[in-house]
Amino acid sequence: MIDTVVYNEISDTVDFIDQTLLPVEKKIVACRDVERMAVAIRRLEVRGAPAIGVAAAFGVYLGLNGFKGSDEALPKHLKEIVRLLGSTRPTAVNLFWALKRVQDVIEKAIKAAPAGEKWSAARDAALAEALTIREEDIEMCRTIGRCGEPFLKNGDTWLTHCNAGALATAGYGTALGVFRAAKEAGKTFHVYVDETRPLLQGARLTAWELFQESISATLICDNMAASLMARGKINGVVVGADRITAHGFVANKIGTYGVAVLAHYHKIPFYVAAPISTFDLHLEHGDDIEIEERDHREITHVGATRLAPEGVDVFNPAFDVTPPELVKAIFTNHGIIKPPFTKNIAKVLGTTKS
Amino acid sequence: MIDTVVYNEISDTVDFIDQTLLPVEKKIVACRDVERMAVAIRRLEVRGAPAIGVAAAFGVYLGLNGFKGSDEALPKHLKEIVRLLGSTRPTAVNLFWALKRVQDVIEKAIKAAPAGEKWSAARDAALAEALTIREEDIEMCRTIGRCGEPFLKNGDTWLTHCNAGALATAGYGTALGVFRAAKEAGKTFHVYVDETRPLLQGARLTAWELFQESISATLICDNMAASLMARGKINGVVVGADRITAHGFVANKIGTYGVAVLAHYHKIPFYVAAPISTFDLHLEHGDDIEIEERDHREITHVGATRLAPEGVDVFNPAFDVTPPELVKAIFTNHGIIKPPFTKNIAKVLGTTKS
Repeated sequence: MIDTVVYNEISDTVDFIDQTLLPVEKKIVACRDVERMAVAIRRLEVRGAPAIGVAAAFGVYLGLNGFKGSDEALPKHLKEIVRLLGSTRPTAVNLFWALKRVQDVIEKAIKAAPAGEKWSAARDAALAEALTIREEDIEMCRTIGRCGEPFLKNGDTWLTHCNAGALATAGYGTALGVFRAAKEAGKTFHVYVDETRPLLQGARLTAWELFQESISATLICDNMAASLMARGKINGVVVGADRITAHGFVANKIGTYGVAVLAHYHKIPFYVAAPISTFDLHLEHGDDIEIEERDHREITHVGATRLAPEGVDVFNPAFDVTPPELVKAIFTNHGIIKPPFTKNIAKVLGTTKS
Repeated sequence: MIDTVVYNEISDTVDFIDQTLLPVEKKIVACRDVERMAVAIRRLEVRGAPAIGVAAAFGVYLGLNGFKGSDEALPKHLKEIVRLLGSTRPTAVNLFWALKRVQDVIEKAIKAAPAGEKWSAARDAALAEALTIREEDIEMCRTIGRCGEPFLKNGDTWLTHCNAGALATAGYGTALGVFRAAKEAGKTFHVYVDETRPLLQGARLTAWELFQESISATLICDNMAASLMARGKINGVVVGADRITAHGFVANKIGTYGVAVLAHYHKIPFYVAAPISTFDLHLEHGDDIEIEERDHREITHVGATRLAPEGVDVFNPAFDVTPPELVKAIFTNHGIIKPPFTKNIAKVLGTTKS
């Protein structure tokens, strides 16, 4: 467990680990206002779909906490807070899910509260809901981990891409939750970690997390996974997801699709671990998913070091889409979803409020 | 054309571009002794199979040039020079090919020369042979380029990995020679360049080279190629080779095999461009190829910037092996080699001195 995003009652701040400084420095930011939280999400100081959801929920609380206007101005202010937070990462469905959830309880609280107490009721409701989202996320991840754990056999070596770990969630992780659960179950295993260019979440975050928890791991460049698979060194792959459509198309960190194709070619099972809040049933196919393109400097520079010639054209998509035929199973907090995905996703999602 | 490694008659030095400083600085090193040349090859200041061959040949000249001993001590000195240069990059077959070629002419020259003139005869023979190897390499690359050029259709977009360019050869390039030839043939096309972790030869060298020559190119991270292929944006792939076995197994920069699998899955032709000196008929299968493992720091650091946590385990193989079933054709200076490779490689190689 790692305290990725937590409410600090004493200082009335939301404290998060600035993940852009890892693995060199573990800096905790005590965040007091929604603007800073929006920057944190946009700059990937807080990243990973579930952690973004938790951070955004706390962000609404911070935005209301700083409000000084009248009861009448409150709904407009809330709308602005939600718009600001919603603009930070357009592909992250958890962001909108968490914002809607907090918004709903706030609106109810405003309605129920007497005049003059609407602001404090809204603020308290936001904090309570944000805390619940965080606690639920930790429990969700434990369930996801226990759901995937049986697929990892004693002595296995698995591969993971990016960071679907404690740092991507409120503290336990989705894909890395499988490894945590396997460790808790007493299994011996090894993990290869894709460094995950361009932002190196694998090298900076996943390798750091696994090292902290003494899980046996080896860091590789993304382009080395194929030859490990060819040598029979990988028994399974598990990754997280940023968005999953009704038909089981999985949007996740750029490079995930390539790993899925390679796993398919080498007959290695490829698993996705994600909470049900990641599913977006309004979307059906991969083409329906908006892919954000990010700053070219992420590829051309590391810190101040220039890696590519000046003036070079760059393409930097943040995500790719893995089609359902390459996915063996999805580990969720409501159990395993296996193919056919269209039918089974509807079955699992239909019985739950999400 | 780029002057990657050239003999400078005025200063009696071998001048090479220190490629570790590209793309930020174009520094030309005037090399006077074999020890410096060995360092240059080991440190990848000069890299790419054909360029290493040319550099090693000139290295033998520099080693003899500095010799002050007797006729009797000359053979032992030559042996030491060859051993030093041969120890720099164990996977580069061109290194051994060039060393053997220069060694043979030197031994003949020593035998033929009268006492007292053996050293100067050896030195002159080394220089003459090194110059010939360089000129032949440029002509070879032009032929390879012309051989691959017809496969690139007007309006195509191709992908390349690492740097099999002018900087990897004496000046024209193998894989990039195909693009140079296509440009000379008046074709319009676009090139996606894999950055090629960990040493980023694609970002630093290929992007730089193509930009210098105004060939339309876009830089991507290695893990982005798969999604471009899925979107139908890649019509062909061409890469160089460090070693090719009798059965057509291709050892090349790490990541090449992954690209080949992805191309296969997306039904995109995957081509290899290499001079016949790259073939090593003593080897049959991929398992016969020795894969050098390189310094972990190449993955954990960029310059002084630490990318991964201290103490993390790292795996850093320099090469991988692409099996013949994933290769559509090999462009060589003796024409196109198509499957079945075992038969056709023997046919092309059998009729030539190599």
